[in-house]
Amino acid sequence: MSWAAAILTLYPEMFPGPLGLSLAGRALAEGKWSLDTVQIRDFATDRHRSVDDTPAGGGAGMVMRADVLGAAVDHALARQPRAPLLAMTPRGRPLAQDFVRELAAGPGVSILCGRFEGMDERLFEARPILPVSIGDYVLSGGETAAIVLLDACVRLLPGVMGAALSGEEESFEGGLLEYPQYTRPNIWEGRMIPEVLRSGDHAKIAAWRKARSIEDTRLRRPDLMERHGDASGRSPSGARHED
Amino acid sequence: MSWAAAILTLYPEMFPGPLGLSLAGRALAEGKWSLDTVQIRDFATDRHRSVDDTPAGGGAGMVMRADVLGAAVDHALARQPRAPLLAMTPRGRPLAQDFVRELAAGPGVSILCGRFEGMDERLFEARPILPVSIGDYVLSGGETAAIVLLDACVRLLPGVMGAALSGEEESFEGGLLEYPQYTRPNIWEGRMIPEVLRSGDHAKIAAWRKARSIEDTRLRRPDLMERHGDASGRSPSGARHED
Repeated sequence: MSWAAAILTLYPEMFPGPLGLSLAGRALAEGKWSLDTVQIRDFATDRHRSVDDTPAGGGAGMVMRADVLGAAVDHALARQPRAPLLAMTPRGRPLAQDFVRELAAGPGVSILCGRFEGMDERLFEARPILPVSIGDYVLSGGETAAIVLLDACVRLLPGVMGAALSGEEESFEGGLLEYPQYTRPNIWEGRMIPEVLRSGDHAKIAAWRKARSIEDTRLRRPDLMERHGDASGRSPSGARHED
Repeated sequence: MSWAAAILTLYPEMFPGPLGLSLAGRALAEGKWSLDTVQIRDFATDRHRSVDDTPAGGGAGMVMRADVLGAAVDHALARQPRAPLLAMTPRGRPLAQDFVRELAAGPGVSILCGRFEGMDERLFEARPILPVSIGDYVLSGGETAAIVLLDACVRLLPGVMGAALSGEEESFEGGLLEYPQYTRPNIWEGRMIPEVLRSGDHAKIAAWRKARSIEDTRLRRPDLMERHGDASGRSPSGARHED
């Protein structure tokens, strides 16, 4: 059975969207993964089919109702009991590449997309939902976050990327940023490709790339560097290290 | 003039995608922002219209050429000289809400979307490009990242969100996660909305929300808490604090 994604959303027409094209789109057409949407509004029970209400305690915007979301979530859990159920929310666990790998190695994923000011917190107490955040910014809804998460997962599915190696030497795989890349032309606007990369000496090239990975991570992302430990290759907890 | 987004991409058909619907879609239809795409391949110069080549020094995948990207970037800079030019890459500066606010307050944005193993590094030395990352994971291309960035910006444009206040009390605005939200029904599966939120005492509600913001940030995101400083309301550098 192929990797199965189910999206709980008020905007099913946002999917597959950009995931219907290029790498993810080809993989979808080839059946390497599947994508289903569930319309949350179908689980509303009143005659207005309302899915939200004003925030308890006051404040701007609307909050998605626990009873409606609970019913939608139960439907998703019954349909895909083995897949983890995520909810996209800025209050969630930050998405990182090691978790993407875990998800891609599993049976698939169900994703609840919030809208408005958020989802009633009781939902997270009452159901096995993992809140996930793709970054420290606020979106108009979870749909674009779900698209990003799916794109990250799908490219790692077996047979999706052309070169089997492509997933291994890239940013975050050793808790570091990837080294800089260059390609022809050798000279562009007076700028040469670094000589070592044209040397054909594979050991020297690997050493240069490792050094640049560490140097760029230190300069650009001291926060990652701290987690990485030191330059000796000690792996950050939870992340892979593929030296 | 409305906020103008220009996307440099090999997949212009991915846009507006999910941004053509809901909040961002309505704002687009109403002319509160505009979206143009530029096909990078139009700047290829050889008869195969190639945009990429093998990585210097070896390795899997393909790297986008500096000469082709440089010409596409020059076109974007000429068309929108006042807008910042971003490139979506995992090697970039992490996107955060304070930078989203800055972008939304400006004239618009041009965004270069990479594909394959990355873009020739000389491009970043030769042109005023700000590399931006939406999170510590790897995507099949910059397009879904650009969609996320635009969604985050567009919701903050004047008149886009219904309630003017909605942008102010939410996650990351004080360097903290947002407090949990609740709405009717008051009792769901035996779980009550916290009593304080039903008290009508606005000072008590504000105090409870502030305490929950701090508590949840401390539990879920100790990394944000460190940047936040302490509970006294000291603002993290670069972030707003709207007490």
